[in-house]
Amino acid sequence: MRAEEVNDLLIAVKEGRLAPDDAVGLLREPVDDLGFAQIDIHRELRQGLPETIYAEHKTPEQTVAIAERMLAGTTGPVIATRVPKVAIGALRARFPELTHNEVARVAVLRSEIGESPRGLVSVITAGTSDLPVAEEAAAVAEACGIKVERVTDAGVAGLHRILAARAPLAEADAVIVVAGMEGALPSIVGGLTGAPIISVPTSVGYGASFDGLAALLGMLNSCAAGVVVCNIDNGFGAAMCALRIVNGKIR
Amino acid sequence: MRAEEVNDLLIAVKEGRLAPDDAVGLLREPVDDLGFAQIDIHRELRQGLPETIYAEHKTPEQTVAIAERMLAGTTGPVIATRVPKVAIGALRARFPELTHNEVARVAVLRSEIGESPRGLVSVITAGTSDLPVAEEAAAVAEACGIKVERVTDAGVAGLHRILAARAPLAEADAVIVVAGMEGALPSIVGGLTGAPIISVPTSVGYGASFDGLAALLGMLNSCAAGVVVCNIDNGFGAAMCALRIVNGKIR
Amino acid sequence: MRAEEVNDLLIAVKEGRLAPDDAVGLLREPVDDLGFAQIDIHRELRQGLPETIYAEHKTPEQTVAIAERMLAGTTGPVIATRVPKVAIGALRARFPELTHNEVARVAVLRSEIGESPRGLVSVITAGTSDLPVAEEAAAVAEACGIKVERVTDAGVAGLHRILAARAPLAEADAVIVVAGMEGALPSIVGGLTGAPIISVPTSVGYGASFDGLAALLGMLNSCAAGVVVCNIDNGFGAAMCALRIVNGKIR
Amino acid sequence: MRAEEVNDLLIAVKEGRLAPDDAVGLLREPVDDLGFAQIDIHRELRQGLPETIYAEHKTPEQTVAIAERMLAGTTGPVIATRVPKVAIGALRARFPELTHNEVARVAVLRSEIGESPRGLVSVITAGTSDLPVAEEAAAVAEACGIKVERVTDAGVAGLHRILAARAPLAEADAVIVVAGMEGALPSIVGGLTGAPIISVPTSVGYGASFDGLAALLGMLNSCAAGVVVCNIDNGFGAAMCALRIVNGKIR
Amino acid sequence: MRAEEVNDLLIAVKEGRLAPDDAVGLLREPVDDLGFAQIDIHRELRQGLPETIYAEHKTPEQTVAIAERMLAGTTGPVIATRVPKVAIGALRARFPELTHNEVARVAVLRSEIGESPRGLVSVITAGTSDLPVAEEAAAVAEACGIKVERVTDAGVAGLHRILAARAPLAEADAVIVVAGMEGALPSIVGGLTGAPIISVPTSVGYGASFDGLAALLGMLNSCAAGVVVCNIDNGFGAAMCALRIVNGKIR
Amino acid sequence: MRAEEVNDLLIAVKEGRLAPDDAVGLLREPVDDLGFAQIDIHRELRQGLPETIYAEHKTPEQTVAIAERMLAGTTGPVIATRVPKVAIGALRARFPELTHNEVARVAVLRSEIGESPRGLVSVITAGTSDLPVAEEAAAVAEACGIKVERVTDAGVAGLHRILAARAPLAEADAVIVVAGMEGALPSIVGGLTGAPIISVPTSVGYGASFDGLAALLGMLNSCAAGVVVCNIDNGFGAAMCALRIVNGKIR
Amino acid sequence: MRAEEVNDLLIAVKEGRLAPDDAVGLLREPVDDLGFAQIDIHRELRQGLPETIYAEHKTPEQTVAIAERMLAGTTGPVIATRVPKVAIGALRARFPELTHNEVARVAVLRSEIGESPRGLVSVITAGTSDLPVAEEAAAVAEACGIKVERVTDAGVAGLHRILAARAPLAEADAVIVVAGMEGALPSIVGGLTGAPIISVPTSVGYGASFDGLAALLGMLNSCAAGVVVCNIDNGFGAAMCALRIVNGKIR
Amino acid sequence: MRAEEVNDLLIAVKEGRLAPDDAVGLLREPVDDLGFAQIDIHRELRQGLPETIYAEHKTPEQTVAIAERMLAGTTGPVIATRVPKVAIGALRARFPELTHNEVARVAVLRSEIGESPRGLVSVITAGTSDLPVAEEAAAVAEACGIKVERVTDAGVAGLHRILAARAPLAEADAVIVVAGMEGALPSIVGGLTGAPIISVPTSVGYGASFDGLAALLGMLNSCAAGVVVCNIDNGFGAAMCALRIVNGKIR
Repeated sequence: MRAEEVNDLLIAVKEGRLAPDDAVGLLREPVDDLGFAQIDIHRELRQGLPETIYAEHKTPEQTVAIAERMLAGTTGPVIATRVPKVAIGALRARFPELTHNEVARVAVLRSEIGESPRGLVSVITAGTSDLPVAEEAAAVAEACGIKVERVTDAGVAGLHRILAARAPLAEADAVIVVAGMEGALPSIVGGLTGAPIISVPTSVGYGASFDGLAALLGMLNSCAAGVVVCNIDNGFGAAMCALRIVNGKIR
Repeated sequence: MRAEEVNDLLIAVKEGRLAPDDAVGLLREPVDDLGFAQIDIHRELRQGLPETIYAEHKTPEQTVAIAERMLAGTTGPVIATRVPKVAIGALRARFPELTHNEVARVAVLRSEIGESPRGLVSVITAGTSDLPVAEEAAAVAEACGIKVERVTDAGVAGLHRILAARAPLAEADAVIVVAGMEGALPSIVGGLTGAPIISVPTSVGYGASFDGLAALLGMLNSCAAGVVVCNIDNGFGAAMCALRIVNGKIR
Repeated sequence: MRAEEVNDLLIAVKEGRLAPDDAVGLLREPVDDLGFAQIDIHRELRQGLPETIYAEHKTPEQTVAIAERMLAGTTGPVIATRVPKVAIGALRARFPELTHNEVARVAVLRSEIGESPRGLVSVITAGTSDLPVAEEAAAVAEACGIKVERVTDAGVAGLHRILAARAPLAEADAVIVVAGMEGALPSIVGGLTGAPIISVPTSVGYGASFDGLAALLGMLNSCAAGVVVCNIDNGFGAAMCALRIVNGKIR
Repeated sequence: MRAEEVNDLLIAVKEGRLAPDDAVGLLREPVDDLGFAQIDIHRELRQGLPETIYAEHKTPEQTVAIAERMLAGTTGPVIATRVPKVAIGALRARFPELTHNEVARVAVLRSEIGESPRGLVSVITAGTSDLPVAEEAAAVAEACGIKVERVTDAGVAGLHRILAARAPLAEADAVIVVAGMEGALPSIVGGLTGAPIISVPTSVGYGASFDGLAALLGMLNSCAAGVVVCNIDNGFGAAMCALRIVNGKIR
Repeated sequence: MRAEEVNDLLIAVKEGRLAPDDAVGLLREPVDDLGFAQIDIHRELRQGLPETIYAEHKTPEQTVAIAERMLAGTTGPVIATRVPKVAIGALRARFPELTHNEVARVAVLRSEIGESPRGLVSVITAGTSDLPVAEEAAAVAEACGIKVERVTDAGVAGLHRILAARAPLAEADAVIVVAGMEGALPSIVGGLTGAPIISVPTSVGYGASFDGLAALLGMLNSCAAGVVVCNIDNGFGAAMCALRIVNGKIR
Repeated sequence: MRAEEVNDLLIAVKEGRLAPDDAVGLLREPVDDLGFAQIDIHRELRQGLPETIYAEHKTPEQTVAIAERMLAGTTGPVIATRVPKVAIGALRARFPELTHNEVARVAVLRSEIGESPRGLVSVITAGTSDLPVAEEAAAVAEACGIKVERVTDAGVAGLHRILAARAPLAEADAVIVVAGMEGALPSIVGGLTGAPIISVPTSVGYGASFDGLAALLGMLNSCAAGVVVCNIDNGFGAAMCALRIVNGKIR
Repeated sequence: MRAEEVNDLLIAVKEGRLAPDDAVGLLREPVDDLGFAQIDIHRELRQGLPETIYAEHKTPEQTVAIAERMLAGTTGPVIATRVPKVAIGALRARFPELTHNEVARVAVLRSEIGESPRGLVSVITAGTSDLPVAEEAAAVAEACGIKVERVTDAGVAGLHRILAARAPLAEADAVIVVAGMEGALPSIVGGLTGAPIISVPTSVGYGASFDGLAALLGMLNSCAAGVVVCNIDNGFGAAMCALRIVNGKIR
Repeated sequence: MRAEEVNDLLIAVKEGRLAPDDAVGLLREPVDDLGFAQIDIHRELRQGLPETIYAEHKTPEQTVAIAERMLAGTTGPVIATRVPKVAIGALRARFPELTHNEVARVAVLRSEIGESPRGLVSVITAGTSDLPVAEEAAAVAEACGIKVERVTDAGVAGLHRILAARAPLAEADAVIVVAGMEGALPSIVGGLTGAPIISVPTSVGYGASFDGLAALLGMLNSCAAGVVVCNIDNGFGAAMCALRIVNGKIR
């Protein structure tokens, strides 16, 4: 439900066209109670953000049922993230037109990919082990109609790749930097471009990486000014931040 | 030195107009070696970001000398952050026109505050103890020519203040949310607006806040999609992220 | 053994009606030594709290045997928590009348659910992944004769659900708030009601939630006054705290 | 502002007796903007909880001004916690009738201490170093009209003191247990009484107590069922939880 | 090799009866190099402590081979700890006379259990889940000829059990206290007896026990004077400390 | 109060010679309520352990008053630890015969140092910065009548000192090893002697010692079997453990 | 690509012999894009360090394909580390001449083992459980043409082994010390030799070793001057540090 | 005492020229017992490493006395680190020829700075706040006769400085990289040179740097192969590692 709709609703209460109890009923409407499971509206995003199903701990039947409701009740993108392999078959049987990014474990049931993409986001990856997180960010951003430019394997030993990618960096509305281990890449990218830098630490690394803690702390302490940080392995969150920036720009 | 200048410089090398060694010399130029102290260019920000002096551990004389060089060598904003009280007198004696935000401990030596501000940033503060960090963000953003809308004391017990501030939130290019303790405010603000949410945990709190760790973890785990996080107490970093977003929008 | 019984016993020693050694024997009585396993009296709760079997690491035979002894030796509720699937069959074969909450993994062998429930407890859940912990709290409270009002999926994106549930919140003897991720929900609920707020952090979340640490710290630092916290995922403990409050009220 | 008042206000909007904008104005009213400082309404507690000034980082003038406004705008208790020594003189000059608990650093500007106290709360302290936190809990609870029974120095080496205090424990509406070091006391008290147990870890201890972390973890892992925990050194929070319980009981 | 033997050896060097290189050879002798695996002499304990095989990560063949060498080369107890199930069969086929404590996962290949046991050690367990660690301590101590008195299920809810066990506590040369969760038991036992208290935290507990960290910190911060602590789950270490005490007493 | 006295008291209740209420009164007696401060009986140690005043946060007057009561009410050693400099003058004025160990900050008001000391304890120190903790252990042990053998500066670079001290190590009833930094010394000492090893980590070290955490973890993980650990900087606790061992031996 | 080659390339740009875009193309050349997977050039080491495949999360086909490209495109050593068992068969089928260290999980596809080895490195292991990490270091170093001297099982209880190994220690260009548990061994070795000490903490240990954290902190705080530390379990990194030292020496 | 001297001493024992007890005496000799304080031989380094006084917690008189003994008893460099300002005057009065590096807080009482320096070490600093640690490393290395090349202010925003310094990097025997905040610099330097990289994390940074923990973890997880790490702020340790490398090279 959009913010304006809530406003209309409150004005209707004032003008006596709507009883307070009915207003409460309408406010409760956006969430379908499916009985066996509530739709995870934590990731339901109003104000231009897509409907999202966090599929990791759901049965295929639950994911399909939630997707049906979301597709029926909205007009924007509908995305499922962290989709287990077993759920893809069930989703494809019901929605043959879906697109599936296997590395990212993202299924897109309805996208906004169009002729004229909204905005440009660069997704830079430090190492190949960081690809699942980077692809989650890229696939979600693309489903929201954003053009994505990928720069992979751009760790410290591959700085030339970033230098070679200066053109997309200079034009990007936002740069998503995905890195594990010491998480140093955002500092370097932040020194090369004035675009917003959204960094995503990954749980890649051994021993004293402590499941991404080292990369998280590294990014929070980045000496490049204005670098901001998402939760560990949270490619989806980085895409949502990029979408917020792109939406603001084209407003 | 701007990115384009570096590009020009490299083309000059190719065209034989510049010797490689001279190019190296020029590349080294932006940093003045003052003898008693190097200019802290960690916070010197190319591509539209301001020159900044992190004044906390410098003598007043050092801060003044660095400021002189920065003002002489650049045309954009020049800002000093975390300025100790003792340094303000010395700065004011030399630069009578400076503006000083006492709560933020920020001194602005040259700003871009103009008739037509660039962009709009909301700075929302959970509690009064978070004000120094919020003011650092606000003062730095204003010095860069951004219009800042402040919403203070908007913690959980004051949700009506955020609701009442929906208008600036809806129009903001970025929303900076500053909170200590459990750091819950960005989750609430993130549900109210589609604008980019830059959250700043503060070291405010007692006992199990562990100097801002609780707020930091809370913000990283925000259930509102797309919330991103700065280092603890890093109002300056939040302003720089907002500036990156605003710069991108007006490009 | 009830506190009054201990008192009686001590008076009997004083009046010479009981030898000290016999008193020691009686004090030791409540625990049956089953040979293969001691009854886990850590969760055995005197003073109105129910007998509980923590079934997680026990064989089905052990759980059944302990349940038999508890049912024979007491008159109040007998509950098994964290019951593995394999143990439910064995319990049901021996106690066909048991009730089983599958989501909560709680089996109730004897309850105090009656015509006139004791007290009212609201159990509020932030997201669907928090349901197992919330249901453990709800199922245990119900087995102790308490009426439970459930409010699910009431995370930050679903604040209207909490607002719509103000009626039960206003009447509740205690409100149990179950949330993972940033654990912000108790702060919001605490601002809406003057009832006791028992918060339970869950291990739900990824990366920097560190298995519930983020939610735990968030709840401990709640800016809402008087919010108290249980161990991570400890729905049983929250129910016991609520029972202590209800018992005190109806005393 | 009481919850009922908000309800009345919304009905007035519906009945056309109040314009929405005026309603917003009224909702904003409870917070006085004093210019030099916002009143810390994080600790302002509606629904029966007292107005509180967290005085630690405020100037004496600010604390006095806030207190004036609170006394003028409310009718319930007004309390200042963590009051620095320098602020007591200023407060006493302006409010000669205040009561000051020096160990607790609590100043009570208006209390509800009456002929017929509301409820009974036991405050049990493990060691003398825990007294400031315990006294903060006791002083705040007393200011709210609750009768407080103190049991001090009741650590493991003084178990006889707790045993001797069984009478108040049996009658208490809530028991606040304050302990540092290993934080074991709530487990013992929890086994002796069926009353609600509110435990407060203190930062008392050396080395591996890590400023209260050991006591905090000990209390969260208490083997006594239903023990709940406040933030480290948060005596005020424990009093507020007790007040919530007492308020519920006498409702 | 005993310390005196080393002394003798050095004197022999001085007296010319032994070449330095031969001395080095003799010093290297005590460890058999089995080719496929070195004997884990980390746990080989001179000065009255037993030969021990830490069997967890060894193949059954390796454990058998090491045991053969140890039995051939020594005269004291030979013990295997953390023995996987698969290794027990192999050990029993080769050493039919071994004794096996299944709960403790300890196999004793040669013990010093005799008519007249050396010393008395009490092993007190908080809960049934702590039994494997407690049994490891008990089984190893018994194999070294020490009489062991077990007190099980003596957590806070079972204090009467400890009180009933005051006799063995008063006579014990050392008391081993094994507890998980909040680790409070050593504080209580330490107040009841003047005997040495060796506490062993276990990884038993959920959520905020953090795999034994809560119990470890609790025991380190025990308010009972002179309580000392072993590594988490280290029943073997506790037995070795007890053996050091008993050996010293009977010296 | 000795355990036997409690026993006598309970028998007196049984035989009707004592009313239960009077028994409670007698049990409460050992603690003097001095009004301004409770005697810290956490460190009061029955069963042969000395009366101790933890003087760190007490005023000189309080420490003197507590010492007076302890001297009057007991016959064993009376010790004050962590005595601030300002309190020594006050103590000496009242008890001219006290002995003061300045490095240890220990004042002994009445000791058991006699002609024939009880037992022998070696106190081994890794570095000079660890001396205050080691001296606290040594001074307290000596006050309890134990002979103490000191081996100082015996870190890894000074292993010859330990080797030279093998004689006292071989004869000691217990060895207290005090070390900061990596805390490796107990592993080495544990390999040289079969005596009980009580290790005390100190907060000595920089950066990644994290105020003694590194030494604490090192000692807990010692590869020498049977090494046990005290809290960081807790020399007093080590002395109490040694006293428990010595007391057991001479029983 | 060697540093000199980059220099040549830049001079070619200056001299007009090479277009900037072509230079970029050449700089990108060293990484083969295999489509299904990028070659992990994080561990690709220019300046004398070997080509390395981190094989842990790759399919056998991917590892074989990457190895083919590396062998074709380089002339130095080609090594695969953390090779899963399933990948060894595939590698051996394609490269029958490979050597495989099973304990180390290292496959060497092309080595520099020659008649005259470069340098000497001692690899000292504390316990048998540390062998996989030590062997990774040793196998990689050997593949790079370095002579390796192994000293195993040299923990605190086996100090005579280190003393007996003084000869290789005295001659070594670098000493790699691998230890888990308390990580004390580097301190001892550092006191015995003036050679560079590269310490590697392992995740060996139980409970409070916290997966290698105890050993890591122990080594960082080593009281032996000049001891440096690698990541937990990072034998490869230790070999690379040793190779850097050896390369520098023979330069 | 040099290793060879110990060897000679043992041979003398064998040949009967020296009694064992006298040998022990000689071995104990290097440490002077000054009565008021032991010489801190933790940092006394045999085998070519210098005599060092860690002066932080010593009185000026103690530091002077220790320096006198060290100068009298040795012939190599004598260095005092972390020298408080108050101690410099006392040292200079007694040793007028000392050299003092104020930023590093290092006083060199006797150096090996000569005509022909031993080896070349580059010390690279990320930011000006890291200079004290970097200077400690540089000053100590210079005192040991090593030529030091400084590259300052070479953080991510100043990468051109490192590139410009490629010449000394290519020739260096070791490169010491000193950085706080995210500690990314060693990864970049490690990709530019094949020389040994010794990284030193500093406690520079705010909030989530957690006093150097972020930089420490970043360096341990460096994606550049063979980077090794010292303790936080331990410039002295880095110099000692470099000295070990240089000593090995010129052997």
